[in-house]
Amino acid sequence: MPNQFDPPSGTRDFLAAELTKRERAFGVLRSVFASYGFEPLQTPAFERVDVLLGKYGDEADKLVFKILRRGEHEASGEADLALRYDMTVPLARVAAAYGSQLPTPYKRYAIGSVWRADRPGRGRFREFTQCDIDTLGSTSPLADAEILCAHHDAVAALGLTDFRILINSRQVLSGLLEAFAVSRELGPGVLTALDKLDKMSPGEVISELTSRGLDEQAAGELVAAMTAEDATERIRTVLKPSESGMAGLEELDRLLALVGSQIPPERIGFTPRMVRGLSYYTGPIWELVAAGVPGSLGGGGRYDHLIAQLGGPDVPATGSSLGIERILTLLPDEAGGRPGLLDVVVTVLSDDLAAPSFGFAAQARAAGLRASVYLGSSGKLGKQLRWAADQGARWCLIYGNAEREAGTVTVRDLLSAEQQAVPEAEVADYLASRAASADG
Amino acid sequence: MPNQFDPPSGTRDFLAAELTKRERAFGVLRSVFASYGFEPLQTPAFERVDVLLGKYGDEADKLVFKILRRGEHEASGEADLALRYDMTVPLARVAAAYGSQLPTPYKRYAIGSVWRADRPGRGRFREFTQCDIDTLGSTSPLADAEILCAHHDAVAALGLTDFRILINSRQVLSGLLEAFAVSRELGPGVLTALDKLDKMSPGEVISELTSRGLDEQAAGELVAAMTAEDATERIRTVLKPSESGMAGLEELDRLLALVGSQIPPERIGFTPRMVRGLSYYTGPIWELVAAGVPGSLGGGGRYDHLIAQLGGPDVPATGSSLGIERILTLLPDEAGGRPGLLDVVVTVLSDDLAAPSFGFAAQARAAGLRASVYLGSSGKLGKQLRWAADQGARWCLIYGNAEREAGTVTVRDLLSAEQQAVPEAEVADYLASRAASADG
Repeated sequence: MPNQFDPPSGTRDFLAAELTKRERAFGVLRSVFASYGFEPLQTPAFERVDVLLGKYGDEADKLVFKILRRGEHEASGEADLALRYDMTVPLARVAAAYGSQLPTPYKRYAIGSVWRADRPGRGRFREFTQCDIDTLGSTSPLADAEILCAHHDAVAALGLTDFRILINSRQVLSGLLEAFAVSRELGPGVLTALDKLDKMSPGEVISELTSRGLDEQAAGELVAAMTAEDATERIRTVLKPSESGMAGLEELDRLLALVGSQIPPERIGFTPRMVRGLSYYTGPIWELVAAGVPGSLGGGGRYDHLIAQLGGPDVPATGSSLGIERILTLLPDEAGGRPGLLDVVVTVLSDDLAAPSFGFAAQARAAGLRASVYLGSSGKLGKQLRWAADQGARWCLIYGNAEREAGTVTVRDLLSAEQQAVPEAEVADYLASRAASADG
Repeated sequence: MPNQFDPPSGTRDFLAAELTKRERAFGVLRSVFASYGFEPLQTPAFERVDVLLGKYGDEADKLVFKILRRGEHEASGEADLALRYDMTVPLARVAAAYGSQLPTPYKRYAIGSVWRADRPGRGRFREFTQCDIDTLGSTSPLADAEILCAHHDAVAALGLTDFRILINSRQVLSGLLEAFAVSRELGPGVLTALDKLDKMSPGEVISELTSRGLDEQAAGELVAAMTAEDATERIRTVLKPSESGMAGLEELDRLLALVGSQIPPERIGFTPRMVRGLSYYTGPIWELVAAGVPGSLGGGGRYDHLIAQLGGPDVPATGSSLGIERILTLLPDEAGGRPGLLDVVVTVLSDDLAAPSFGFAAQARAAGLRASVYLGSSGKLGKQLRWAADQGARWCLIYGNAEREAGTVTVRDLLSAEQQAVPEAEVADYLASRAASADG
């Protein structure tokens, strides 16, 4: 039940364990993208409303969070700014703003929050991280292949194993419409209906196709071809008379050959029924799916005119987006639950021992360990040792009057409960060598 | 001159070089904070308006970016959400929401954007990164000492050397008002005026004090004591009759003794004229200043009742905030200008050589190097070599018909212009060993 202290609907607070897991995953992605020579880009959380609105249609515009004007203009109820809805509109603006300062081609990745006023639900958030890679300014099929491989490598590096990349092409889909004599007006609706073959039965899709105006025989044949065991082969045969279809197949085969040395064959395949709803794609398209997970975990394709439509320069482009929020939920939890916050805790057994204890924590940090003194109000050793264990600490440094007189610190191994008296000045060295052997 | 492609007023696009520098700095901060056992926290970019507004007064409320309600409510012109103004209000909400799930004490750091509709100016932004460390739930002076040391270490780890931490205490300031017989009503105004001694002349501050109602003699003596060469000693003497003043001095001396083993003495000192404007501080306060830089680079102090005032539980607290945007501008630029994006570029000299070239780039990545094929449309070797150099690549792999026939790849060292024929299957090993010796 939501209460007044919950974060706003559809948003999340990330406490340490979850945040650490996320940051680690983003670090993995950054390093894979960098290995391909993609460079990072970060744009502001908000853009001017005129930059953001009207780019993806009315439905998308309704999901944009708009920011009220300020000061004397606040009462107008008008918005002048809006939170980032995706990473592509800002990319188009950046391409326009910094054209000559950017490398050619401009290969960039962006990992950051986007905001959409969607109805929040299980796994659907109003603030979520988007992770995009795009190459602007290259028509080369190698640019598509590179995006595809980087996308694949990123997901594999995160530790996902049971996934597949479905690929198809806009030209193949056009050829298919041509081959089944689907009229130009019906085309987009037919593709939208076919796109549902991954979640609806063939019969349901046939009904949708006929309700969209396709005659029953064509609908039946089209769905049968798309869903046959040997769909790939049947579609290849069907496409033979279509110039666009053959060009699309050739493009796909070339792409598959290029990525063949890097993506295992069982992880990628031509999938005629995969359509991707977005009308802006102009070449190959792909989608990442995982066994047992409905919908896709990401996807992309070539979109040669979108950057211009979004207000940027007219440059060819290809790119992929990872559904990183969904992928994160599929990753195995790390063993051991809550990660330890500290390696070393130093007792504070009385006020006049506080200063040397504080100094021993500094020695432990100098040895490369995470360390803190006990910050509570209890002077009892037992309580302080329990607190040390709660922090996940491996060692507790005990410094009482006896130790002070002897000029030593008692280093207690919280795993073995063994204790060792160590001369005050040697604490850093001692801990460094213990830590080195604990790592080994 | 701003144009339609610029980011919104007061915000910035971070291209690769700048962003990499920033991310590296944030990584350094995270690692210092973690070494003290501070854990990360990330809250949403926006909060409900009722959580955010009314917490820091009307002036601050005017700077809050408010988000319009959506759908049928948009026309009302009302806001239901607002962008984060600082990291402390969300911290108070988190402390209230997750109380028992959080460690005690709760030591957290937060590095993230905050948004303020300030008039943008040189070095003043509407979207900027804030970097806070706070400890909730400990009254121990060790908690203050830890914050102070972590704050110091963070700035030192970033590479800043010429900085100083000024410390003072609310009790010392109360004692001072007592000693100079400043009335309770005049107290806050007098402190506000004294706070300006770092940017105004003593005469100007005296005028401000008298205009605020302090009599001329007291104003003159107070300013003289605060600005004397031996101000520290004079203030110590002046405070002797004040109980609060003596308690404050004792607190400061204890704090200075605690941090003495970790912060070099020339980097920290009792500074009676340092007031910090914010009325919520309840104990020691501190401020970070750098030679030749007006204003402060950060600061903090103990604020034992603020979390409750902000809507959280009534817990003692102490914390620091780094003015990381200003600190970043003070850091030396890394040598070498624009960082190289790639270590290895592979030529693509004809369409039928594309697939093997693409595979060699994968081999280079497998050797731990950043690598990409040439993605442009020119088939000319000279142009491709120039592109490789532009990317900052160290090696270019040349693969033409001659190489294909010989089963080799020509590895060109772009630094020495030396070339070496390497068998196709050995490219990864060869590059790995060259990279290892280039590093060494």
